[in-house]
Amino acid sequence: LALPGDVRVTLRREMIAPQSGRAFVVQAGERMRVTDVQGEQVADIVAFALPDVREAISNGRTIDYNGTLRLTAGHVLYSNRGRPMLTVVADTVGRHDFTLAPCSPEMFALLHNNTDPHPSCFENLSACLAPHGIAPDAIPTAFNAFMTVEIDASGGVSVVPPTSKAGDYVELRAEMPLVAGVTACSAEQSNNNAFKPIEVTIFGA
Amino acid sequence: LALPGDVRVTLRREMIAPQSGRAFVVQAGERMRVTDVQGEQVADIVAFALPDVREAISNGRTIDYNGTLRLTAGHVLYSNRGRPMLTVVADTVGRHDFTLAPCSPEMFALLHNNTDPHPSCFENLSACLAPHGIAPDAIPTAFNAFMTVEIDASGGVSVVPPTSKAGDYVELRAEMPLVAGVTACSAEQSNNNAFKPIEVTIFGA
Repeated sequence: LALPGDVRVTLRREMIAPQSGRAFVVQAGERMRVTDVQGEQVADIVAFALPDVREAISNGRTIDYNGTLRLTAGHVLYSNRGRPMLTVVADTVGRHDFTLAPCSPEMFALLHNNTDPHPSCFENLSACLAPHGIAPDAIPTAFNAFMTVEIDASGGVSVVPPTSKAGDYVELRAEMPLVAGVTACSAEQSNNNAFKPIEVTIFGA
Repeated sequence: LALPGDVRVTLRREMIAPQSGRAFVVQAGERMRVTDVQGEQVADIVAFALPDVREAISNGRTIDYNGTLRLTAGHVLYSNRGRPMLTVVADTVGRHDFTLAPCSPEMFALLHNNTDPHPSCFENLSACLAPHGIAPDAIPTAFNAFMTVEIDASGGVSVVPPTSKAGDYVELRAEMPLVAGVTACSAEQSNNNAFKPIEVTIFGA
């Protein structure tokens, strides 16, 4: 959206196909908008510092330092070195998750007794991040945009359909140069049983 | 406790001094009991597979696969490869945390405006795990035994005193050969403002 006085420059725009993933190099100060194009679609997001990709996004640091599981505009996502990595600068939804791992072959087997070949966020992140020198073992718990996880009084967690509608987005400003992996999530139960694309737009600093 | 018919053999017993940490090599089938000797003392626990320490305990996989934040006896702690790493085989407390990072210099600075030198679980884990080839960057969000984190209806998290009494313990069976880092936590607010030791006992398979 080009608002009056908004001097932001669109550097890149890319559509992530359903059940796939893409990596994006983002410079400090640039903003990455992740849009749920059709609604009710989760996007798993991980990030690694450049050039030293051993520094990565950390859910434990982020939840601790913000004092909440409900991360939204104004919150900072921290690295495993305790440094600000991404700041949530806009959020039209307000519900995301930072407690569950990307879906994986092991998850489909364990939780859904499905051992057939099935695309997964873990494999999609592994593939798109490999050219940046990031091994699958280094992929941390992701910031799962639009993923709605209910927690009951006993600590039980359940994944329910996202509240996001078509065009909803979350926008993250990079606080350091980094490479982000972003997926259009492959898990039926995270996306209300339909697989849709995710759009990523990178705006200039 | 040597109960009739209990053939367990105590292999090692070690007291972890207040505000410090120790590493323990544990073979598959062996059990590691972590005891809160005096009560209200948190122990941060991380684990890495042997000989390939790139496989490490994962809170995202564990919370997802168990469907709960409230991990206790019967639950399995999974690795970043989705394999069972540790099974909780006994638990006299029932309240632990797997969402917050080990306390660190960055945490004391950010949350408590304390930039003076202060022992931290992150530094203690880094030091005791270094001889096993584990870099500080590889330390994941820990399983925080006895740490009580309240989550309100809006997702806000607050750390309150542990409910553990003197002698309470959690016991973990190794499902693969591994090295575990265990601390007697260094954060005032996690331990009701007193620092106490933690005892670790390794029982034979």
